[in-house]
Amino acid sequence: MNESHRILPRSGTAFPLREGERLVVSDPEGCQVADLLAFGRFDLREVISNGRTLDYEETIRLTTGNRLWSNRSRVLLTIEEDTVGAHDFLLTPCSEDTFRHFYPDKPVHRGCFGNLAEALSPWGVTPDMIPVAFNCFMNVPIAADGTIRVEPPLSKPGDRIAFRAEEDLIVGLTACSAYASNGGTFKPIDYRIER
Amino acid sequence: MNESHRILPRSGTAFPLREGERLVVSDPEGCQVADLLAFGRFDLREVISNGRTLDYEETIRLTTGNRLWSNRSRVLLTIEEDTVGAHDFLLTPCSEDTFRHFYPDKPVHRGCFGNLAEALSPWGVTPDMIPVAFNCFMNVPIAADGTIRVEPPLSKPGDRIAFRAEEDLIVGLTACSAYASNGGTFKPIDYRIER
Repeated sequence: MNESHRILPRSGTAFPLREGERLVVSDPEGCQVADLLAFGRFDLREVISNGRTLDYEETIRLTTGNRLWSNRSRVLLTIEEDTVGAHDFLLTPCSEDTFRHFYPDKPVHRGCFGNLAEALSPWGVTPDMIPVAFNCFMNVPIAADGTIRVEPPLSKPGDRIAFRAEEDLIVGLTACSAYASNGGTFKPIDYRIER
Repeated sequence: MNESHRILPRSGTAFPLREGERLVVSDPEGCQVADLLAFGRFDLREVISNGRTLDYEETIRLTTGNRLWSNRSRVLLTIEEDTVGAHDFLLTPCSEDTFRHFYPDKPVHRGCFGNLAEALSPWGVTPDMIPVAFNCFMNVPIAADGTIRVEPPLSKPGDRIAFRAEEDLIVGLTACSAYASNGGTFKPIDYRIER
């Protein structure tokens, strides 16, 4: 039995994902970002790690076949399908602080960080336990001099990325709240759990 | 009064660094890496974050003038001097797991991760609290296709990087144990605290 869900604009959710289940994250309208976190279901101190992942996968362009590793050097998720090919695993979820920093003349929003913190709180995750998320569809080119830019996602309506859970997990997922990461608009994100 | 210290090859240390003090990390023989961590002195849940730093500094080439930010969006260290200009803030400290992965035919070493865990243990830091370190002198070029390589450091004998503490900190620091990150040799790292 599959479950399909919609994450409303500028919000987030959290749910268990069992080993062997498949999570399909899709962008129904296009040009939207979804921040994804995964914690060990039975030990929340284990969590996806951008550093371990970049180390073992030897690339910052993670796509089909690449794996997301934990801080304990174990594979938590494998990317099984990816119709976009441009995601980010360098930058932290947007937050009240990043809104103040990057958009000083705009209303402050709690951002993906606040949405993840609230959604993950019932599972026992505290804000300080939130690391860099895997930012589905986030388009962050790095220039030759090392400069980072956040550009609109390359995802078109219906584009998706699918993950296989390699362990029992608690997953956090958002529809991103920041202006820069989705081209200035706020849109929903869809996800489906395939059992 | 200044203190000068030597970190022996393949080992590590930890020490308090007060707000306003300056930490000079130098490479006495050249072509060696030093993994650096910084935790909040009075709340170890605050720690340097590569994601927040890359976000706010908008570059992966961190050098003089750049700041190392915490998971709570506060500046912990400012880079005041840098005679090399090539450091890494993407990859995790080498560990038993990374030795098994990258050097399957060589003896396993606990690596910078094990050295940091031991050195930071008396201060209350547990292994799961160790994030991506700021890897002084580590040379990690990223190709146009996103591929990451670990190449020998560009540091020459006597090269250095100096940090100003912007908060009271506990610092962990190593002389790196991995083959790839220092060109296959293991050498000491020197550091000096300027008050």
